[in-house]
Amino acid sequence: MDARENIYLAVVGAGSASPEICELAEAVGKEAALRGWILLTGGLGGVMEAAAKGARGVGGMTLGILPGGDRNQANPYIHVAVATDMHHGRNAIIALTADALIAVDGEYGTLSEVAFGLKLGKPVVGLMTQWKVSGLLAARNPKEAVELIAELIESKRG
Amino acid sequence: MDARENIYLAVVGAGSASPEICELAEAVGKEAALRGWILLTGGLGGVMEAAAKGARGVGGMTLGILPGGDRNQANPYIHVAVATDMHHGRNAIIALTADALIAVDGEYGTLSEVAFGLKLGKPVVGLMTQWKVSGLLAARNPKEAVELIAELIESKRG
Amino acid sequence: MDARENIYLAVVGAGSASPEICELAEAVGKEAALRGWILLTGGLGGVMEAAAKGARGVGGMTLGILPGGDRNQANPYIHVAVATDMHHGRNAIIALTADALIAVDGEYGTLSEVAFGLKLGKPVVGLMTQWKVSGLLAARNPKEAVELIAELIESKRG
Amino acid sequence: MDARENIYLAVVGAGSASPEICELAEAVGKEAALRGWILLTGGLGGVMEAAAKGARGVGGMTLGILPGGDRNQANPYIHVAVATDMHHGRNAIIALTADALIAVDGEYGTLSEVAFGLKLGKPVVGLMTQWKVSGLLAARNPKEAVELIAELIESKRG
Repeated sequence: MDARENIYLAVVGAGSASPEICELAEAVGKEAALRGWILLTGGLGGVMEAAAKGARGVGGMTLGILPGGDRNQANPYIHVAVATDMHHGRNAIIALTADALIAVDGEYGTLSEVAFGLKLGKPVVGLMTQWKVSGLLAARNPKEAVELIAELIESKRG
Repeated sequence: MDARENIYLAVVGAGSASPEICELAEAVGKEAALRGWILLTGGLGGVMEAAAKGARGVGGMTLGILPGGDRNQANPYIHVAVATDMHHGRNAIIALTADALIAVDGEYGTLSEVAFGLKLGKPVVGLMTQWKVSGLLAARNPKEAVELIAELIESKRG
Repeated sequence: MDARENIYLAVVGAGSASPEICELAEAVGKEAALRGWILLTGGLGGVMEAAAKGARGVGGMTLGILPGGDRNQANPYIHVAVATDMHHGRNAIIALTADALIAVDGEYGTLSEVAFGLKLGKPVVGLMTQWKVSGLLAARNPKEAVELIAELIESKRG
Repeated sequence: MDARENIYLAVVGAGSASPEICELAEAVGKEAALRGWILLTGGLGGVMEAAAKGARGVGGMTLGILPGGDRNQANPYIHVAVATDMHHGRNAIIALTADALIAVDGEYGTLSEVAFGLKLGKPVVGLMTQWKVSGLLAARNPKEAVELIAELIESKRG
């Protein structure tokens, strides 16, 4: 594991989500981990927890960048947590640290992360997202979302 | 002037913009200042400079929250500048400090500010914005945008 | 008033302080405002409030950079407030925005501001501070502290 | 590995340091890793790199919280890196994320981290530090520094 060679995928979405949405997030986390990517989230519940659970279930590595000042806020599937005490401002750190982002459904906080990702020129894919934003690519399922990200990262590196 | 009684309006938009867009931003700044509001922007050029120019032209007060670490980055129409050295992360501070936001056209950075404003439950109005985001209200011209904000703030306080 | 021409003096110290310490802070605020400087603080109580009160009593301009996300946290002597919701992290913003700092007594939060000020190469003067830190200059009273800052800014500009 | 059960030790110090100072930092990193602690630093060179090298040499886990916006800034001994683009402001995040801090020599940036650590009530030990700050404990060598931290964490938990 090396901070400069690994691919970091951020999975962003709401802190409280329906079982269907969580299932999607978990599948994204699993697919990402199977590719050897580090899974990065905001470290809390809902989509963030489901994605980390999916990654960890197949032996993946998970990183959580928390809004509060206490590392113990992290959900139980987070390996390494960072406590920012910056609240919404930490969304910029998530986008900066990620190589690419997948938004799963999500609310306004998620939209801010999507916006930062696009601003930074990173691949951003949406699953079940509701906004119309140019540059935000849509995928039909978790596998397709992760494959799309893999291709976009490949083409940037190539 | 009092930090707790004044209304702070953030005008958000791109740091480089066409003359037509800048004209709109200037008119928004002017309308806001005529109501006695403090005009808050990201302190740089384009829409941010035009809005501050509009406010200052009628004696308004302007505050700039800069991405970099040097107060001298501020455009010449900013009365009070804050240097954050946080780059895109300062967008959260703009939304937190504002009572309401008006986006004029704008790119992904602007979208992050719109998202933070909506997340925080603040009135957010768009002029010539291109995204489809629920909660982001559209206005047809600067006067209408400022009137809409005034009504929304009134109804929140009332 | 112009963000680039004005001198911004940060007065840093504890949010709860004895009457004697507050008296010193108030005198520093007054002396700074009499020179036409903008008084910058963390916007809360104790030393921050006393300094702002001193500045405002002689018609000075005051800026508060708050730790929380609500502008209404500002003490009643703050003209312009910025809500960061970054807690201790906002101390870096105070040091970045200031041209110089005066610490009045103070605790560990104050020490972080002193450290940032020195790191950024800005004049930092202590009144009744208890730490031994090279580069932190000691003054015997508010008048001397402000005069020392004035000389150091002058010599940097000259 | 679990974000909530592991102990995170921050080793803080200058980004450029003498071979003697780097040797101390490396020994601190090694001792911490031998105890199973996660080693946290600012991710750059000098003391930060030496500490991470020491930890990694014995199979430890290293986390770097970077000042800039590019994960590739991380030194080659960092497993997981976080890009903040907040510059000095990231020092607060280091102190928040750590359970305890050891400062090795260090300059003003290090002093800000020491101050934040003390403000947050965390054990802070100095090796070859030059400041006189109450609460900052002195150790004579790396082994003693790490043992002191271990005892202080133990007594806080116990």
